[in-house]
Amino acid sequence: MKLIKNAAGRMVPDVVNGIESIPYKGINGHKPDGRNYGGPIRSCADYPADGNKVVPGLKEALIKAGIKDGMTISTHHHLRNGDVVTNQLFDIIHELGIKGVRWFPSASFPCHEHLIPYLEDGTIHHIEGSMNGPLGRYTSYGKMKGLGVLRSHGGRYQSVQDGEVHIDIAVIASPTADPFGNANGVSGNSACGLIGFALADSEYADRVIVVTDNLVPFPCIPWQIQGNNVDYVVQVDSLGDASKIVSGTTEVTKSPDRLLIAEYVAQFIEDAGLMKDGFSFQAGAGGTNLAFVLYLKERMKAKNVKARFVRGGSTKYLVQLLEEGLTDYILDGQTFDLEGVRSMRENPRHINTSPFTSYNFHGKGNFASIVDVAVLGATEVDVNFNANVVSHSDGLLLHGIGGWQNCLFSKCTILAIPSFRDRIPVIVDDVMTLCGPGELIDVIITERGIAINPLRKDLLECVKNSSLPIKEIGEIKSEVERICGGKPALPTRDLNEPVAVVKWVDGTVLDSVFKVIE
Amino acid sequence: MKLIKNAAGRMVPDVVNGIESIPYKGINGHKPDGRNYGGPIRSCADYPADGNKVVPGLKEALIKAGIKDGMTISTHHHLRNGDVVTNQLFDIIHELGIKGVRWFPSASFPCHEHLIPYLEDGTIHHIEGSMNGPLGRYTSYGKMKGLGVLRSHGGRYQSVQDGEVHIDIAVIASPTADPFGNANGVSGNSACGLIGFALADSEYADRVIVVTDNLVPFPCIPWQIQGNNVDYVVQVDSLGDASKIVSGTTEVTKSPDRLLIAEYVAQFIEDAGLMKDGFSFQAGAGGTNLAFVLYLKERMKAKNVKARFVRGGSTKYLVQLLEEGLTDYILDGQTFDLEGVRSMRENPRHINTSPFTSYNFHGKGNFASIVDVAVLGATEVDVNFNANVVSHSDGLLLHGIGGWQNCLFSKCTILAIPSFRDRIPVIVDDVMTLCGPGELIDVIITERGIAINPLRKDLLECVKNSSLPIKEIGEIKSEVERICGGKPALPTRDLNEPVAVVKWVDGTVLDSVFKVIE
Repeated sequence: MKLIKNAAGRMVPDVVNGIESIPYKGINGHKPDGRNYGGPIRSCADYPADGNKVVPGLKEALIKAGIKDGMTISTHHHLRNGDVVTNQLFDIIHELGIKGVRWFPSASFPCHEHLIPYLEDGTIHHIEGSMNGPLGRYTSYGKMKGLGVLRSHGGRYQSVQDGEVHIDIAVIASPTADPFGNANGVSGNSACGLIGFALADSEYADRVIVVTDNLVPFPCIPWQIQGNNVDYVVQVDSLGDASKIVSGTTEVTKSPDRLLIAEYVAQFIEDAGLMKDGFSFQAGAGGTNLAFVLYLKERMKAKNVKARFVRGGSTKYLVQLLEEGLTDYILDGQTFDLEGVRSMRENPRHINTSPFTSYNFHGKGNFASIVDVAVLGATEVDVNFNANVVSHSDGLLLHGIGGWQNCLFSKCTILAIPSFRDRIPVIVDDVMTLCGPGELIDVIITERGIAINPLRKDLLECVKNSSLPIKEIGEIKSEVERICGGKPALPTRDLNEPVAVVKWVDGTVLDSVFKVIE
Repeated sequence: MKLIKNAAGRMVPDVVNGIESIPYKGINGHKPDGRNYGGPIRSCADYPADGNKVVPGLKEALIKAGIKDGMTISTHHHLRNGDVVTNQLFDIIHELGIKGVRWFPSASFPCHEHLIPYLEDGTIHHIEGSMNGPLGRYTSYGKMKGLGVLRSHGGRYQSVQDGEVHIDIAVIASPTADPFGNANGVSGNSACGLIGFALADSEYADRVIVVTDNLVPFPCIPWQIQGNNVDYVVQVDSLGDASKIVSGTTEVTKSPDRLLIAEYVAQFIEDAGLMKDGFSFQAGAGGTNLAFVLYLKERMKAKNVKARFVRGGSTKYLVQLLEEGLTDYILDGQTFDLEGVRSMRENPRHINTSPFTSYNFHGKGNFASIVDVAVLGATEVDVNFNANVVSHSDGLLLHGIGGWQNCLFSKCTILAIPSFRDRIPVIVDDVMTLCGPGELIDVIITERGIAINPLRKDLLECVKNSSLPIKEIGEIKSEVERICGGKPALPTRDLNEPVAVVKWVDGTVLDSVFKVIE
C-alpha cells in the first residue's frame, strides 16, 4: 500500500484491505465500465414449496447459510441505537469460532460498542460502514486490523450493485415479516418505518436471513423487503429497545443561535426564489433542520405555496406538512419518530424510498439531483466550500456520511451550521477530512452570516437585494477566529497511517482518515 | 438442429434460433449453475440531473437507444387487444430500415396482426412470447423465419434474469408516468391496473423507453416501474383503445354446462377440506372461473370462512370478495375489468404483484406454490393428466401459456374444463402439445365428472364420501368419445419441422409445436 494524491489533492491509499482502489477523479470524473453484480441463479426446487422458511434460530440460520471465516456479513441500522440483533449476531459468530469477518453495516451506533472485544480477538477483521461514536473512536487510534471504509447511503448501494463489495450473508432485522421472508418496518413493537437500507443486501447477498419479532401470516404487506430474495426467517422475542429505535417525539432546537440559522435558511429559500409552487426540499432530523421546516412552513402558508414533495428522514414536522396539504408527498428514506412511522403506515402519500431510488450514483439517474433545496449539516467547512461530516478538527472519526454526499447533488445545497462549536471554529482553512467537494456546496448559512459559493453567480444575483447578511466566507472565518482566539488546534496524526477511507459516490477514494496519536 | 427426445418423451430441437437449448429433465430436474444477468453499470453523470428524460418521440428515443439490425425489442401486453403502441413501434422500426429484430413481447393479441407484413419483409425475424390468434396461426403454418418460443410469465422473467434472453431495448407502454420514468398502470385514460409484465424488461434491458399518454410531475406514485431503470420517456396522445384494454365489465358464463363445472369446482374445494379460514386460491377471468368464484363465495359465507388472499387476474368478483371482507388481500398480476383497476388504485389491500414475486422459478421461492388451490383451464388434457394450453387438436398455435405453468405448483391444481368443445373431445390419449406435466395436475373437473390424479391419494381420501361424481379419467374420456363419435381428428403435420417450442418454467424445452400442412 502506498499513498497517492487524488484529484482533490488528498493522499489516499492505492490498496484498501487488499483490494486495489481508484483515487477520486473529480465529481463526474470516473466512468464505470463493468457490469452489475449477478448472484448465483437460484431455483425454487431448493426452497420449501409451502413458502415457510422459518428456522429455529439465528445460529441455525447462519450455519445453514454456510458461515465461515473471512465472510462479509451485512446488517442495517434502521433500529439505530436500539438494535440488539447485531450484537446477538456477533455473539453467535464468536461462539461459532468464526474469524476475520468483514462487517458491512449501513451504520453502527454507540450500542455496538459491545463489538469491540470481537474487533480485538479477530472475530471481526474490519468494518465497512458508518461508525457513529465508540467504534469510530476505536478505529481512529489505529486499533482496527483493517481499514474502515466509509460510504454514503448511495455509495453503499453502488458498491454492492457494482460487485465492489460482495455480501456473503445479510442479516435483516425486520419489525414485521412473514414466513416467506417478505418484511417491512411499518408495524410491530420494533416498528421503525422502513428498512430500505437493507434493500441492496436483500437483492445481492448470497444468503439472506430475515430476523423478526412480529411474524405474520403470508403475505406481509407492504413487502419493503421481498421474500423472493430471502433464504431463512428467524423469529425472536425482541429486535431491540423500541424507545431507542425511534424517538417518541422530536424537538426543535431551543438555542437562539440555531434558531437564527434556521430562520436565515427559510428566508434564503424564499428570497432566492426557490420557494415556489411545486418545489421540493430535503430536511434532516437535527434540531436546526426541524426549526427550519417550521419557519419555511410559515412562509409557504403566507405565500400560499405548496411543495410537490419533501424528502425525509421524516419527523412529525414533515408529517404535518403532508397532513396540512403543504406537500403532495413525503419521499422518505428513514423515519425518526413515531409520527413518521404512523404516517408511513397509514398515509399512501408517505412513500417508502431506498438508496436505490434516491441515491445510487450508478443508476439511470436518482432522486437526489431532482430536489430543489437540500439543507444539510457539517462538522467543518473550509474557505473553498469543501466540507467534512465524519470527523472534527480533533481528527477523531465519530460520524457517518449517511445520505449527505448524495444530497449534495440537489439543485441548491445549503449547509446550515454554527460558525463554531465548543469555542472551536467550524469554518477552517482546510477540512480535516474531505467528504464533499466545494463545487457541490452552494451556500453556507451560519448565525454570523451567509456565504454563497462564487460558482453560483445565479444565487448571488437572486439575493442581492435581500436583507440577509451575505458575506464572503473568509470574512466569516476571520470573525470566528477572533471570537475563538484563533484557528482550531490540530491533533497529532500519523499521516503515513490511514485508518479509514472516505469513498466518493462513484466508489473512488476521496480522502483518508489518519491515525490519531493518543 | 436435430430433434431429441426429452424426459417427457417429447421431441424437441437441440438448438433454438441458433442457441443451444436444454431439453426438459423433469419438473425439478434442471439445476441452474450460472449467475444472474448483470447489465452495464450506468452513471448518473450520463443522465439529466433534473431528472427530465423526455424526448420528442418514439423514433428519437429508439435512435438514441442505438437501435440496429438484429436487436431484441421487448413489449408488454397489459394493454391487451387495445394496444396501439406496439404497432406504432414496429412501423417506426420498419421506417428506419431495421431488419432481423427478435420481438420479445410478454404476449401478442389479434390487434398485432398488423405486424404480419414485418414478419414477411424481415423487419421481425421471429417472436418469442405468447401468440394469441393471428400471429400464432401464421407461425403454425411455418411462415415465420425463426422458431417461436413460448414461455410462461414466470419463464419469461427467468429467461431475462438468467441472461438467456438479452433485451436490447424495452418499450414500456405506461398509462401514467413522470419525466424521470417512474410509471404505473393505475391511472390515466389507458389505465390497465398494473404493468408488472414489464418489470424484468425495466430491470435488465440495456435501454428502457417509457411511453405514456398521461405524463404527471415527478413523482409518479406508485412507481410500479422505477424511473431509476429508465433511459427515455416519450409522451404520446394515446396508448390505445381503452375499451379493449380492460372490459367495462366481466360476465360469468350463462352456459348450463359451464355453470355445472363451476359448481363442482366450488363443491370440490369445500368437500376436500381446502376451504378453511386463512386459505388462498387463484382464479382467472374466464366465464367458468368467474362463476366458480361466485359459488365459492356463497359457500364461504355460509361457513363463515375468510381467505387470507386470492390471486387474480382480478375482476369485479374478486374485488367484491375483498370489499365484503371475505379475503384479506388480492395479490394481483393483471386487472381484467374497470372494477379491478379502480380497486387496485384505491384499496391498499389490492396488491400489485409481478412475475418476479409470483412466478419466477429461479428465485428463492415464489408465491405460486404457496397458493392452496389454483383453478385453471386447458385446451386439452390426456389420460395421464398432461395438459395443453397453446394449441387444440387441430395443431394450430392459438394461445399463450400465461401464468398457467407457474400456477401448476399450487398445493391443489384443478383444471376446470368442458369435456368437449365444438363436438371435439378435450380429454384425449395424448395432448397435441405438452404444456403441463401430469404430475402437477391434481384434479380435472368436467361437466361429466371429476377425475383425481391417482398420485393424490390424499385428495381421493378426502372426497370419498362426497356426493361429487368422482370418476376415472378414462371413463370420462370414453363417455365423451361416445358422444362425439370418436377421438379428435388429427391434423397433417410435418414432425421434422418445429415452428415453435414450449419452455418449461426452468428454461428447458418441454415440447415442440410442429408445422401444420394447410
